[in-house]
Amino acid sequence: MKALVFKGPGEKGWEEVPRPSVQKPTDAVVRITKTTICGTDLHILKGDVPAVTPGRILGHEGVGVIEQIGDGVKNFKVGDHVLISCITSCGSCANCRRQLYAHCADGGWILGHLIDGTQAEYVRIPHADNSLYPVPPGADEEALVMLSDILPTGFEIGVLAGQVAPGDSVAIVGAGPVGMATLLTAQFYSPARLIMLDTDAGRLEIAKRFGATDVIDVSQGNALETLLTLSGGGVDVAIEAVGIPATFDLCQQAIVPGGRIANVGVHGKSVELHLETLWIKNITLTTGLVNTNTTAMLLKTVASGKIAPAQLVTHRFDMAQFLDAYEVFSNAAKENAMKVIVSAAVPVD
Amino acid sequence: MKALVFKGPGEKGWEEVPRPSVQKPTDAVVRITKTTICGTDLHILKGDVPAVTPGRILGHEGVGVIEQIGDGVKNFKVGDHVLISCITSCGSCANCRRQLYAHCADGGWILGHLIDGTQAEYVRIPHADNSLYPVPPGADEEALVMLSDILPTGFEIGVLAGQVAPGDSVAIVGAGPVGMATLLTAQFYSPARLIMLDTDAGRLEIAKRFGATDVIDVSQGNALETLLTLSGGGVDVAIEAVGIPATFDLCQQAIVPGGRIANVGVHGKSVELHLETLWIKNITLTTGLVNTNTTAMLLKTVASGKIAPAQLVTHRFDMAQFLDAYEVFSNAAKENAMKVIVSAAVPVD
Repeated sequence: MKALVFKGPGEKGWEEVPRPSVQKPTDAVVRITKTTICGTDLHILKGDVPAVTPGRILGHEGVGVIEQIGDGVKNFKVGDHVLISCITSCGSCANCRRQLYAHCADGGWILGHLIDGTQAEYVRIPHADNSLYPVPPGADEEALVMLSDILPTGFEIGVLAGQVAPGDSVAIVGAGPVGMATLLTAQFYSPARLIMLDTDAGRLEIAKRFGATDVIDVSQGNALETLLTLSGGGVDVAIEAVGIPATFDLCQQAIVPGGRIANVGVHGKSVELHLETLWIKNITLTTGLVNTNTTAMLLKTVASGKIAPAQLVTHRFDMAQFLDAYEVFSNAAKENAMKVIVSAAVPVD
Repeated sequence: MKALVFKGPGEKGWEEVPRPSVQKPTDAVVRITKTTICGTDLHILKGDVPAVTPGRILGHEGVGVIEQIGDGVKNFKVGDHVLISCITSCGSCANCRRQLYAHCADGGWILGHLIDGTQAEYVRIPHADNSLYPVPPGADEEALVMLSDILPTGFEIGVLAGQVAPGDSVAIVGAGPVGMATLLTAQFYSPARLIMLDTDAGRLEIAKRFGATDVIDVSQGNALETLLTLSGGGVDVAIEAVGIPATFDLCQQAIVPGGRIANVGVHGKSVELHLETLWIKNITLTTGLVNTNTTAMLLKTVASGKIAPAQLVTHRFDMAQFLDAYEVFSNAAKENAMKVIVSAAVPVD
């Protein structure tokens, strides 16, 4: 089969590799119909994630059809149309039993990281019963690919951890795909203000269409001052969706007493936490990798039309154009790209 | 009257000053029967709290009897025996109406800070209806002085914010009065392990008597390693009760995925937050000044014998010996002092 193979920092290829097969009774092999590229994949390609070794097939998002299945899988059968969760979970370790699937003792984020991933014609999914979801009949596959990772990430680690509530002032720092997913799902809870911050004017325009009440172009300077003015002195919830010290700092400076900072961004270095001013402010700061424990819930919000995640998709490719898809996604600002969809040559129904 | 007056960094006196009187209809003037000294008072004396200006009477803890009362006070009358909360709250501003009394628009921590405090024969208490509590008949005044500040601080900002739950492993870093108050109130929720860390062997001995399941003498080195071994790889809750970067760092290094860090310590400078490892760990970090919204609840736990806060008192003085009380409290380690009680010459009842 063909797959997108990491060949060491800065190098990748769309190459012929052996097709995966069931290794354990709890495995399923899924024929990928649609997949995508995540910012994390770009980090891996830069060499920022040393656990990913050359030869690894990348990708942790996708939708497909079960091609082969282990004897121990109870909930699925060959031919089932499935959504792949970015988090693999055994469902029975101590962390899984408290819904902390991100820290599953035999899973967590392993796809396209510690085992081969979804940017391929076929992928092996361990613990299939807990790591796949049935695709509802008639569902839009492109929308569902957004539910592998970015929608639950924005929702669980941004909106739920930040305890977004009706009437709140909410700032989302970073209008990339996960920031946008946070913006869409924050609206479940009817905040009064949803202020989006980014350095890219194009993304801020999209944010307005997606429901931001206000946008702040950080490249114009004075972002903090503007945010404080807009929010009447500070926000109830600040959601960090970039992963660098400057954006984290904006969050800690904009928060009101009793407020919540939800860190969604993936950080490569430490930040300075201003406890000399925050100790007295009764704030809550949260971090986390998505557990995908809300995936079933999010599927229902998509089915009922409460959110339309397919609008995050800006570019479409066939698998044979996988390197072109990376090229566009790597130059997202220039290309006005948000999420790209990469489809198998013959789509399922 | 006599009062303990701050005269600028490093200087204080037990001096004759004008006796306070009711200034607003919502005020009460309380004749202090028992008060105490807080670590915060030592910070003020060092000059660390520039908002405190020379001439200020220190102190934000105490018990007494109402001597004079404003026309607008509904819940109390002259002669009532009352507990003074360290937090003054109007009860009607936006923050008070969501129980964020620490950030009351016309209160918060003002006693012995922005207005004259309780280390005096008399003190004026603004917003008396919301800032005083009736002393239950027969209650031990020394126990109640612990409820002005340290018990609710340890309970609200340590135990409740840290979500201590049955079966949890809990580390409390710092065995000073607030750390000990945290230790006592954490036991309401039956954690499996309550591990106390300090550099003072004497305080750790007291911690064992107060219910610590394990103690770690940080001065012996390898505190983190010992803590990780004792807790089987990390704690569910880490409570910082010192206020320096090193103790905060111990907390962030000892926390398990899904764990909670509750910062109780008053910090004078920023800390390095290791988001490069914590971003993925699904932790919750909280900060805060006590709201004293649990004072009524804590009074009931004292009355029912669930906790015995009077055991925190190690030294007793008359008001005429106020400077001696400071001397002992300033040398707490050498003097084996925890909390000191300073009493008016003629105790009530």
